[in-house]
Amino acid sequence: MMEKSVRPILEMNAFDKQSPHNTNVARRLANTGASSVLFYRDPIEMVSAEGVWMTAKDGTRYLDFYNNVPCLGHSHPAVVAAVSQQLAKLNTNTRYIVPIVDDYLEALKTTFPEPLSNVVLTCSGSEANDLAMRLACKHTGGEGFIVTESAYHGNTSLVTQVSPSALKNTKLPDHVIAIPPPSKKYYGSNIAQGFAERVESAIAQLEQRGIKAAALLLDSIFSSDGVFAEPDGFLKQAVEVIHNAGGLYIADEVQPGFARTGTAFWGFQNHDVVPDIVTLGKPMGNGFPMAGVVTKPQFLDEFCADVGYFNTFGGNPVAAAAGLAVLNEIKNQNLQDNARILGDYLKAGLQKIADLSPHIGEVRGSGLFLGIDICHPNDNNQPDPEVTLAMIDKFRDENILIGAAGAAGATLKLRPALCLTKSEADLFLQAFKKILDDI
Amino acid sequence: MMEKSVRPILEMNAFDKQSPHNTNVARRLANTGASSVLFYRDPIEMVSAEGVWMTAKDGTRYLDFYNNVPCLGHSHPAVVAAVSQQLAKLNTNTRYIVPIVDDYLEALKTTFPEPLSNVVLTCSGSEANDLAMRLACKHTGGEGFIVTESAYHGNTSLVTQVSPSALKNTKLPDHVIAIPPPSKKYYGSNIAQGFAERVESAIAQLEQRGIKAAALLLDSIFSSDGVFAEPDGFLKQAVEVIHNAGGLYIADEVQPGFARTGTAFWGFQNHDVVPDIVTLGKPMGNGFPMAGVVTKPQFLDEFCADVGYFNTFGGNPVAAAAGLAVLNEIKNQNLQDNARILGDYLKAGLQKIADLSPHIGEVRGSGLFLGIDICHPNDNNQPDPEVTLAMIDKFRDENILIGAAGAAGATLKLRPALCLTKSEADLFLQAFKKILDDI
Repeated sequence: MMEKSVRPILEMNAFDKQSPHNTNVARRLANTGASSVLFYRDPIEMVSAEGVWMTAKDGTRYLDFYNNVPCLGHSHPAVVAAVSQQLAKLNTNTRYIVPIVDDYLEALKTTFPEPLSNVVLTCSGSEANDLAMRLACKHTGGEGFIVTESAYHGNTSLVTQVSPSALKNTKLPDHVIAIPPPSKKYYGSNIAQGFAERVESAIAQLEQRGIKAAALLLDSIFSSDGVFAEPDGFLKQAVEVIHNAGGLYIADEVQPGFARTGTAFWGFQNHDVVPDIVTLGKPMGNGFPMAGVVTKPQFLDEFCADVGYFNTFGGNPVAAAAGLAVLNEIKNQNLQDNARILGDYLKAGLQKIADLSPHIGEVRGSGLFLGIDICHPNDNNQPDPEVTLAMIDKFRDENILIGAAGAAGATLKLRPALCLTKSEADLFLQAFKKILDDI
Repeated sequence: MMEKSVRPILEMNAFDKQSPHNTNVARRLANTGASSVLFYRDPIEMVSAEGVWMTAKDGTRYLDFYNNVPCLGHSHPAVVAAVSQQLAKLNTNTRYIVPIVDDYLEALKTTFPEPLSNVVLTCSGSEANDLAMRLACKHTGGEGFIVTESAYHGNTSLVTQVSPSALKNTKLPDHVIAIPPPSKKYYGSNIAQGFAERVESAIAQLEQRGIKAAALLLDSIFSSDGVFAEPDGFLKQAVEVIHNAGGLYIADEVQPGFARTGTAFWGFQNHDVVPDIVTLGKPMGNGFPMAGVVTKPQFLDEFCADVGYFNTFGGNPVAAAAGLAVLNEIKNQNLQDNARILGDYLKAGLQKIADLSPHIGEVRGSGLFLGIDICHPNDNNQPDPEVTLAMIDKFRDENILIGAAGAAGATLKLRPALCLTKSEADLFLQAFKKILDDI
């Protein structure tokens, strides 16, 4: 049988250290050592990608349900053209005026409610969350953070502290409290109230440690916790609780943002709340490295009085060109609608198949960000990471790329490009049914 | 007269908050608030750039002696072609094998001595230094860092703590000791010994605070301290001191790396030392956002046993394509030789002009990374930031872009692209002479 994966998000489906006989793996290990993160026992060598499809060296075309970075689809011509043209013309930092940068910032800002009117562009979601946390500490005078149990917010030192899913042998520092994700399993039918109560008790726990809460930091769809989107609005109470305690609410939109949830452009909008700080990343440039923090002017005023913040690559005109292409394509191709319509279609189809299988606990999510709980046949509350891992391999045999999330690594995580078609969704549904029939 | 700049590196020559009447400035301030970093009282709107030249909206062509990111020159066709082609073909993360990524890693590794054989690619120099510091803490069990007084190593929370030049109202934390940069002014004629002694006393000071030194973290050319490159080998003793204390030596090559010093590909090579960890950034992709950490396998083994490290954009094939183009062009166009030859020419020319001016203290540096101390006419040891700032404005009037560094913000910092020609160097020398004559 499969090994139990200790750390689902970063290391599930990673076997590189066990496959040194594979030439490609050996080469990668020689180059990157223990930081190697190759997927699959026999990692795939990719040569090209287009739309929702990736092509391997052996000619196999894989349907990519894993990667939520290329939101418009792999190698999207609008982004390729925008980046290529701007790169050939001008690529510099934000110390000069380059109108496309402000054009982008203004286009981005139209997607946010007041008073979120200032943007800091960075290179990665990690840098964005690192800055967001410091803005919150500076404003509140607190240093405590409340996150969910399998949260992942990035890779810097500060952000790793609030990313329980990245920690292996180290425990959370005293200033971080991890609470269970907004699942029925923990909170029953009233998730909003149960989750808000846990936020309240976390604030109290921090206080007992002599630590003031700086912020409630939440991925708006709880990606690495296993995808929790329902019911709409369940975060509202928790946000009120942190605000009443003088803390901020940071919405991490690095994964759910840019129309993926279908019902809204930003995940937090599904909850009828206005965050104090929003962080963006992954799909922002369809793969061009860029990310950002959106917040109130006051928080930047306060922070920048103490610390000069400059980001060499952040906000360069090539990133702006990529970002503008992404915003324009989402709008012009109605990709938010497509995410909602195809997401609903996919979810309904998955549910129908799941109803016939003893291995499936729950199908959840919004738009093209869905989670499927894989459980022991006799116990819907018992996650089954071994079968999940086996299914990931079987999906590969069906030429579909997919990953897992959740505390046990037993939630299949679906995040195809927003340009997914009905026939591509059908391919996934057929494979899902076949795999479940074969187990 | 000019205001005294409190923080030279990040805010010298930044007046955006004082120029809200300027339409471009007002727009930028509305978009990025207090994080705006525009240069000059009347910021320049740039429209294109090529080689060492940037063109503004009003048609003015500026000779760029400021920006060390586009090391091959702005909009370099080899990088534009490499990025455009790879972006149209495949851009994904390091979870799949894409041979160009390992091709790049191997090409990069050939520039490093043993045992520096593992590379972690990141998006920014900040991310690289953040990771490097954590590797050092994990390996040594220490948490103390020794840096120079006006060091700048990046913008994450952890890295800002070791970047005195980024701090305004906050003092260094207890685990960070800042020592004077390797200047004759502080250490007299035996810089190697004086600097090593300060490292030794910093280690002792940390010990008195109950803190073990994790690393000596140094920009190999002390860019933000004011550019200190001479004499060759002066770091060797200091590195021995930190090693004897069980600490590591981290070489921050984000600014001096990739052949800029002319005499070596990496700045540390001018000192006949092998760092434990090297961090790279800025010129690595000629503007494509990429950076990295190069180190011994053991350090990554130790770190990754505790923490899973993944970087979504780090090591993507487009970055690899940009990075390969940079390495190939440096080699094929003999840019290291050019940096050395043109650097020597420029330095000799600057010195000749400086000898006739009471405003110039010292001309320093290596290759195309030079520093010129601007001093009070009657006292070579008294830096003059007001005149420096006035000179930066006058250089702009002469269509030359240049910045300053150093504790007082009174060292002009020259970092043109490595493709600089003799006639372009002459343009700078003529302007320098003219400006000094006019003061």
